Amino acid sequence: MAHQQFKDCIDACVACAVACSHCATECLKEEHVAHMAKCIQLDLECAAICRSAAEVMSLGSSFSAHLCRVCADVCKACAEECEKHAEMGMDHCRQCAEACRRCAEACEEMATPV
Amino acid sequence: MAHQQFKDCIDACVACAVACSHCATECLKEEHVAHMAKCIQLDLECAAICRSAAEVMSLGSSFSAHLCRVCADVCKACAEECEKHAEMGMDHCRQCAEACRRCAEACEEMATPV
Amino acid sequence: MAHQQFKDCIDACVACAVACSHCATECLKEEHVAHMAKCIQLDLECAAICRSAAEVMSLGSSFSAHLCRVCADVCKACAEECEKHAEMGMDHCRQCAEACRRCAEACEEMATPV
Amino acid sequence: MAHQQFKDCIDACVACAVACSHCATECLKEEHVAHMAKCIQLDLECAAICRSAAEVMSLGSSFSAHLCRVCADVCKACAEECEKHAEMGMDHCRQCAEACRRCAEACEEMATPV
Repeated sequence: MAHQQFKDCIDACVACAVACSHCATECLKEEHVAHMAKCIQLDLECAAICRSAAEVMSLGSSFSAHLCRVCADVCKACAEECEKHAEMGMDHCRQCAEACRRCAEACEEMATPV
Repeated sequence: MAHQQFKDCIDACVACAVACSHCATECLKEEHVAHMAKCIQLDLECAAICRSAAEVMSLGSSFSAHLCRVCADVCKACAEECEKHAEMGMDHCRQCAEACRRCAEACEEMATPV
Repeated sequence: MAHQQFKDCIDACVACAVACSHCATECLKEEHVAHMAKCIQLDLECAAICRSAAEVMSLGSSFSAHLCRVCADVCKACAEECEKHAEMGMDHCRQCAEACRRCAEACEEMATPV
Repeated sequence: MAHQQFKDCIDACVACAVACSHCATECLKEEHVAHMAKCIQLDLECAAICRSAAEVMSLGSSFSAHLCRVCADVCKACAEECEKHAEMGMDHCRQCAEACRRCAEACEEMATPV
């Protein structure tokens, strides 16, 4: 069943969307917001695409694999940026990077034609 | 911390949004789709509002309580409709009704001024 | 400027998302809902992807072209299905098909590497 | 017809969501991002709620008036913040403030029980 097949990937996408939105809002409270601008920008792009991928998979759509392809790519870009700040001790970026990596992996698997 | 405070409610909202979208798409495959029209309609309204509530809480927004008020109401309406079909053995409606009830409860708590 | 460059395509995507959601809800009121099941399903998938494409372009994202590729494809699929019902006099399907065709065209242009 | 009745308000909401997302991303490019933190935060909250209001109205939902109530409030909050920066010459904030004011007005009308 389409929905069951998509279940793990949906979970990874919604968790990633939540982590990205949260990371963006926490970045905005940091002392040096200017350093976080690229991170916030990628958070927003990643959250939007993750939400969409989750919705489309929940609908069992045949376009899911195509959206997961884009989602995997934005997740990797966002993870890369967040990891820079995670190294410097920002916990919201560390959590976000982890969620992005998990989501990228799950989406890669969905995106790969079986 | 706002995000932590919202954590359980966010989880309930995203789970409900996924269950509603899935229920809608499964209803569309039922033999008697006409009987499911109201259910599909409420699924779509509920999914949209749950996604929005989850996003707004992820952002730690001060408008979260107001959105949770609306979300609790649509979840209750959707649960009520799904429960009718759950009684007749439709598993997607049973799962959706459960997700809606959990989400309604979580949103009620958020919506109530402490 | 990214936003300006995306302006027409954003407008086509939001108009298409609105038309698709409206078409889905009007299909659910039709006498022969069962005949509309595929149309409703595609309406929902198309609306989700159009909303996402509009959001990602509004953010001036470098992933816009990739999302527009997927958006053009789902719009064409939805237009094709809606056109069948438009021929039989369903006005919401005719309007939706037109919005989908316009959006597919706009997204094709965005998706094409310049 | 519900959809027609909602048409102007839907248009105001989608225009506002686009303006807010665009304003957020342009704020992130400003020299003094730190000054824009509150503006970006409200942009994101407002965009999320506007998108949701537009979707729910497109579905002809009976919960539209309730969502429009919340939408009017977040639009006013966002307009107020953007207007501070508009006075200092930021064009994206001026455009966003205008879209927020228009949307607040349209949503107020929808929110008012007839």
